[in-house]
Amino acid sequence: MAVKYVYTFSEGNGKLKELLGGKGANLAEMTNLGMPVPKGFTITTEACTRYYDDGETIAPEIEEDIYKFLADLEARTGKKFGDKVNPLLVSVRSGARASMPGMMDTILNLGINAEVAELLAKKSGNPRWAYDCYRRFIQMYSDVVMEVGKKHFEELIDAMKEKRGVSQDVDLTADDLKELAGQFKAEYKLATGAEFPSEPREQLIGAVRAVFRSWNNDRAKVYRRQNDIPASWGTAVNVQEMVFGNLGNTSGTGVAFTRNPATGEKVLFGEFLMNAQGEDVVAGIRTPQSIEQLAQVIPEAYAEFVTICDKLEKHYRDMQDMEFTIEDRKLFMLQTRNGKRTAAAALKIAFDLLDDGIINEQEAVLMIDAKSLDHLLHPQFDASALARAAAIGTGLAASPGAASGQAVFTAEDAKKWADSGKKVVLVRLETSPEDIEGMAAAEGILTVRGGMTSHAAVVARGMGACCVAGCGEIKMNEKAKTFTLGGKTYKEGDVISIDGNTGCIYDGAIPTVPAAITGNFERLLALSDKYRRLSVRTNADTPKDAKQARKFGAQGIGLCRTEHMFFDADRIPAIREMICADTKEAREKALAKLEPMQQSDFEGIYEAMEGLPVTIRFLDPPLHEFLPKEDAEIALLAKDLGKSVEAVREIIESLHEQNPMMGHRGCRLAVTYPEIAEMQTRAVIKAALAVQKKHPDWSVVPEIMIPLIGELKEFKFVKNYVVATADKLIAEAGSDLHYKVGTMMEIPRACLTADAIAAEAEFFSFGTNDLTQMTFGFSRDDAGKFLDYYYKTQIYESDPFARLDTTGVGKLVEMGVSLGRGVRPDLKIGICGEHGGDPSSVEFCDKTGLDYVSCSPFRVPIARLAAAQSQLKLKK
Amino acid sequence: MAVKYVYTFSEGNGKLKELLGGKGANLAEMTNLGMPVPKGFTITTEACTRYYDDGETIAPEIEEDIYKFLADLEARTGKKFGDKVNPLLVSVRSGARASMPGMMDTILNLGINAEVAELLAKKSGNPRWAYDCYRRFIQMYSDVVMEVGKKHFEELIDAMKEKRGVSQDVDLTADDLKELAGQFKAEYKLATGAEFPSEPREQLIGAVRAVFRSWNNDRAKVYRRQNDIPASWGTAVNVQEMVFGNLGNTSGTGVAFTRNPATGEKVLFGEFLMNAQGEDVVAGIRTPQSIEQLAQVIPEAYAEFVTICDKLEKHYRDMQDMEFTIEDRKLFMLQTRNGKRTAAAALKIAFDLLDDGIINEQEAVLMIDAKSLDHLLHPQFDASALARAAAIGTGLAASPGAASGQAVFTAEDAKKWADSGKKVVLVRLETSPEDIEGMAAAEGILTVRGGMTSHAAVVARGMGACCVAGCGEIKMNEKAKTFTLGGKTYKEGDVISIDGNTGCIYDGAIPTVPAAITGNFERLLALSDKYRRLSVRTNADTPKDAKQARKFGAQGIGLCRTEHMFFDADRIPAIREMICADTKEAREKALAKLEPMQQSDFEGIYEAMEGLPVTIRFLDPPLHEFLPKEDAEIALLAKDLGKSVEAVREIIESLHEQNPMMGHRGCRLAVTYPEIAEMQTRAVIKAALAVQKKHPDWSVVPEIMIPLIGELKEFKFVKNYVVATADKLIAEAGSDLHYKVGTMMEIPRACLTADAIAAEAEFFSFGTNDLTQMTFGFSRDDAGKFLDYYYKTQIYESDPFARLDTTGVGKLVEMGVSLGRGVRPDLKIGICGEHGGDPSSVEFCDKTGLDYVSCSPFRVPIARLAAAQSQLKLKK
Repeated sequence: MAVKYVYTFSEGNGKLKELLGGKGANLAEMTNLGMPVPKGFTITTEACTRYYDDGETIAPEIEEDIYKFLADLEARTGKKFGDKVNPLLVSVRSGARASMPGMMDTILNLGINAEVAELLAKKSGNPRWAYDCYRRFIQMYSDVVMEVGKKHFEELIDAMKEKRGVSQDVDLTADDLKELAGQFKAEYKLATGAEFPSEPREQLIGAVRAVFRSWNNDRAKVYRRQNDIPASWGTAVNVQEMVFGNLGNTSGTGVAFTRNPATGEKVLFGEFLMNAQGEDVVAGIRTPQSIEQLAQVIPEAYAEFVTICDKLEKHYRDMQDMEFTIEDRKLFMLQTRNGKRTAAAALKIAFDLLDDGIINEQEAVLMIDAKSLDHLLHPQFDASALARAAAIGTGLAASPGAASGQAVFTAEDAKKWADSGKKVVLVRLETSPEDIEGMAAAEGILTVRGGMTSHAAVVARGMGACCVAGCGEIKMNEKAKTFTLGGKTYKEGDVISIDGNTGCIYDGAIPTVPAAITGNFERLLALSDKYRRLSVRTNADTPKDAKQARKFGAQGIGLCRTEHMFFDADRIPAIREMICADTKEAREKALAKLEPMQQSDFEGIYEAMEGLPVTIRFLDPPLHEFLPKEDAEIALLAKDLGKSVEAVREIIESLHEQNPMMGHRGCRLAVTYPEIAEMQTRAVIKAALAVQKKHPDWSVVPEIMIPLIGELKEFKFVKNYVVATADKLIAEAGSDLHYKVGTMMEIPRACLTADAIAAEAEFFSFGTNDLTQMTFGFSRDDAGKFLDYYYKTQIYESDPFARLDTTGVGKLVEMGVSLGRGVRPDLKIGICGEHGGDPSSVEFCDKTGLDYVSCSPFRVPIARLAAAQSQLKLKK
Repeated sequence: MAVKYVYTFSEGNGKLKELLGGKGANLAEMTNLGMPVPKGFTITTEACTRYYDDGETIAPEIEEDIYKFLADLEARTGKKFGDKVNPLLVSVRSGARASMPGMMDTILNLGINAEVAELLAKKSGNPRWAYDCYRRFIQMYSDVVMEVGKKHFEELIDAMKEKRGVSQDVDLTADDLKELAGQFKAEYKLATGAEFPSEPREQLIGAVRAVFRSWNNDRAKVYRRQNDIPASWGTAVNVQEMVFGNLGNTSGTGVAFTRNPATGEKVLFGEFLMNAQGEDVVAGIRTPQSIEQLAQVIPEAYAEFVTICDKLEKHYRDMQDMEFTIEDRKLFMLQTRNGKRTAAAALKIAFDLLDDGIINEQEAVLMIDAKSLDHLLHPQFDASALARAAAIGTGLAASPGAASGQAVFTAEDAKKWADSGKKVVLVRLETSPEDIEGMAAAEGILTVRGGMTSHAAVVARGMGACCVAGCGEIKMNEKAKTFTLGGKTYKEGDVISIDGNTGCIYDGAIPTVPAAITGNFERLLALSDKYRRLSVRTNADTPKDAKQARKFGAQGIGLCRTEHMFFDADRIPAIREMICADTKEAREKALAKLEPMQQSDFEGIYEAMEGLPVTIRFLDPPLHEFLPKEDAEIALLAKDLGKSVEAVREIIESLHEQNPMMGHRGCRLAVTYPEIAEMQTRAVIKAALAVQKKHPDWSVVPEIMIPLIGELKEFKFVKNYVVATADKLIAEAGSDLHYKVGTMMEIPRACLTADAIAAEAEFFSFGTNDLTQMTFGFSRDDAGKFLDYYYKTQIYESDPFARLDTTGVGKLVEMGVSLGRGVRPDLKIGICGEHGGDPSSVEFCDKTGLDYVSCSPFRVPIARLAAAQSQLKLKK
């Protein structure tokens, strides 16, 4: 059977979005509901896919189909393309499966040419309208189909207005517009070397081709990546009889929402413009009127519109975003779709609809974009102040929130300035673990290098701090403590602002408003908990983070990184002493200094978690990360250790690695220095014993997690030390404390041999950051240099460090789960990479049968919602 | 059924090596053949495994079994442990499945104590013998079981000899020996705090325990790793009635081979010592006599021995290595095993046996250790000169061969000195691609850092150059151009020698002899070709390497690394210009300079290969590898490019990567700069067209290999550029040249998604170096720091970069093969990592169904033999 590439509106319906695109499906649905929709047909998304499969050409059979449906449209409207009596004009609009506002192209008034324009001028007695249509068509067609003239056409219009001494387009006469049309055609010929096409059928195929092509324009690609829309979907094309909002003062065009998209308030919200067409309303040519005023201007159209709004919202059971045109007092609906909204509005709308009995709980939960909850958790820039500010540059929106402060260039300065009461933004080439204190002290962090999972981004999200990362436009001079951006050089102390929601950077201060968490937020999360299967834990290294996460609903700690504790100023000397030790004894002496500090950290965390599970990962980073880099610091360390500067330098040099990510770290540290694992075990177990004793009603069960395991024997080797140490302490205390020893699954080989490892490991936690690095073979620190090219060429459509790659990395996770559970059916399995807070990744974890996800505190609410949505989708 | 842990010799046979160990099985076999073997029994390897499973204790049931078989032995010999009339003495010897000479422990004369010694002295009328046995037992038992006194005991013997004014042990009297026994026991008590055990049963269990324990001593572990023997095998223990070579001048002990193990010549080869026991022959206490002389000393024993030798060799159908003892003119056989031999001897023996009709072709092929062929391909140090030299240090035997020369410290110096006719050894902390020319010019390469697959090792093996890598003992002062080793500081120009077969480093020059390739070598390879299924290709980057490899039998090039060509002095300026280009146009201009050079390289390679397949890998390393590091060079480059030094520094800085191994390299370069792939395609295709035209009878089919692919779309993106460029050139030339575009499988994700990739890739070549790095998550440059610990703790038993990890990496290879062939059944699949020349890895590749392996030229013969052995094993 031949594929059907074209559908009339009455053949389609609202469920056929995949085939007809959102716009086409909804035009069909409105047609079927008996609403006033201009007649037309939709060329399917399959035709678009075919277009790309055929090397960007429209197959003859599709062209034939289009002409067949055009003939049908001509029959139904009683008009004909290029007809001498009753010529047909149409609009050609893109419409993808998911709404992508403004991303692709539209052409109005197609079918017009010099003869048709003259005929329409005569026939209508409204030559101004006829030539307005004509010049608009030439403008849009040239821009969209041939990519010429847009800017120059605007200049020609401005020149004409100046010549005529008028300021508004509507004040130009028919003759002016006719003259402009002539100028446009000349311009077109100059740019393309060809005559402007006057044959309507040729115009139509050109326009369809242009819409298909626009699916792959740069802004569409970026939008798709930001919104997880696959390139394979393609766009549909809607061809529709024109209705005219530019026929005069009884005509107009407008857009409206059934509710306020910023607040969710249930009130009609929109704008319209009389004697206008298409984009005029949003283009700001004239100031539009607010939608209520339509009641005065064309009362009968307003009344009908209000009725339709109500009907559409009830029909779609969601807030609608609509386009309409009034042609000589008669209302036509050109589009309806579920409207975009802020997170706060989304919550209000969902619960209003739920409370009105229009949707049920499950639908309310599914209605909220989980990612958008992030915006509710951080302070924001004041919207009106933001509207008046111009960004001086843009980086990655790495961690949401808003920050204004004085630029400082080192973590120490950040700490020092903040301690003296100043607000600072820490500007760095990139951050490292040593910068932690300074990062915590700063209002926000701005980095030149690094991606969405760079150290700065990960730590900032963990802290709930605002961060803009990887702003490559910045020219940094670290020595001089200055940077140049947007043509201006900023010195230490100069005030800048950064927006973690958009990645924008501003000169000077912008006032912020605190995050508004309404009751609906709590209500949503309670509903989510009702429907989800997955547990949600948090990644937290301090009692403060742990408490924050519990407020957000964390059910335990899935990842407590012990090394972060080592960077504190009072601890780093001991860890450095340990690293520089020449003998096991010297190393143990230094470790003995760290032990009580670690123990007290863990006690604090157990206290904060009140008996909920806590997974503690043993020392992970390469040791050189703890050593100083600056001459002065090295000299100081040498003095502390009673060694020569040269000896300390030799140690630092000997720890240098070509590829530290793949070096001497993780469990490899415990294999070479088992005394580190012994010390950490003592700290964990002694803390647990102490807290359990203090709170006999809690159930303190430490989960010790060995990182970077790639082989069973490696795990067993470290586990033996842990168990020997722990069992001795527990026996000495006369306690029956339970504890678990498990592994981080972050090395491909661990997943490939998970059956062997599960024989010894009591739990698995997928560390998908490292697992993604190893599976793809690129480091997150370095991938920034080429990933942009990968997005541009659509080799990758999303950042694998932000959204779990279910095809490759996911396959290893699935192998790990099935091999592991094959040996140990009750194996507890979680994920503690950055992906634990990403909704699509949470959905994958849910489907794959994981027990929990663990994410940074500020992502816990997102994970709770995403987990519920995953279950609801599975059950659908 | 209870496990049988002990076997008498007559219960066993030569096939039970896994259970009884080599020694035990062969003692059983000789017993069954009716040869004179002292009576005894074997405790199985399973008992050893059980010993370790039980936490290094001997289970009561095993102890019981031992006592049961001891009682049986007592009954059969008519002697008893500790008996007042006829006391039993036994030897306790280790015996693993594979022969591990000198690695584990032996105890003789067990069962003796003061009373027994006195009884034996009286009964035999030979008190000197009795007390010699006694003191020997105390010595061995103390050393082996309690690990005390070895050195001190020797000192006590020396003191006694001095006191008595004699120089030889045999000149000590019975009283002297009795006195020594007393001194030994006192020493034992001092060291252990306990009396020396006099109870024979206690002695026996202690000795068995000591043998089990010796399975895991350090030298055994190292030997196992070098010889691919798994730790899980364990050792058996042989308990055997003593026969005495130290009874006087009609007794003696000796060792012999049925053929010369150095040359393979068919002549009895060995030594003996009269009035001696155990290790005396090899310990060098007295100078032993050569085996023929035994015909004069004890003619009847010699005659019997010659008969037995002949019988054993015919029975085992291999050269035998035997131990014997003569007790009062009567011959006893204590051991036989297939003898170790040099590679040259192995070849001669195999073909002599084949020609004598004792073995068949298949057996001859299986008889040769494939790895050992390496030794036949490189010049060697003169053995007698080597015997007189003492090593000043040891590194890794990274690439075989022998080199003497003046030490130089930079690649440039190596080149310069060599050009002026000097022989040099290049000494570096580590080498990098820039050093290639200097490495090629040097006699040998010595590095301080890096493992068996470090840059130095890989490149040296590729070149067939001698290399000792990773000699951490060296203290290097690069600036001063000196290094210190073995207590001496070597300056530039000082002569040193390095042995790539042993890793030893010597002061001064040692003369070399050229490699001896006899006719047997060719004969073996011809036989191998008859029985193998796998093709063998080579990794070669130059016509010279290609020709060398063809001489060794390479059937094509499996990996031609194009980047090595870029490091030539006349090319590096163009590649640097390309890297520093600001625009695509500037980049293309620089590439245009490289194109004719690359084309002529490829022409040379096609010519050398005469129509055999050639796989060319496109540019792989990160670009910063091509940029200079030294100030002077940077200044020069800036001048060449007409840029400021600062600008060039900025470019170098901008290319810096945290983890270059996981950075902007491989196909990622082609994705960001497709013009590089286009240039390389033009060079490949134009060269192929030219050579095909010149040699119409050849079939030139270039195989273009895209490195570091992790995703189908990435491959397709690069392939599109390749195909467009190639097809245009071929069409323009009016040729029907065929070419293939395939991918290197070296990223885990490529293996996981091999079905998708195989839809586009026309061949796969597993790059197991990188695949091993990514699968294990460690870089071969950095792993040296901790892999030693991993070997010591037996977490890993072999270097995964030298021997393919079939469990983890192998699983990915298998997935790649089965997913790939599932989509494209005729998919050509090879391997081009270092593993392509490792026999056990070749066997894995054969089993997994690969079409070919590719390895460095000097490993081609090894791969040919290994491939044949794999097929013969599969068919067995």
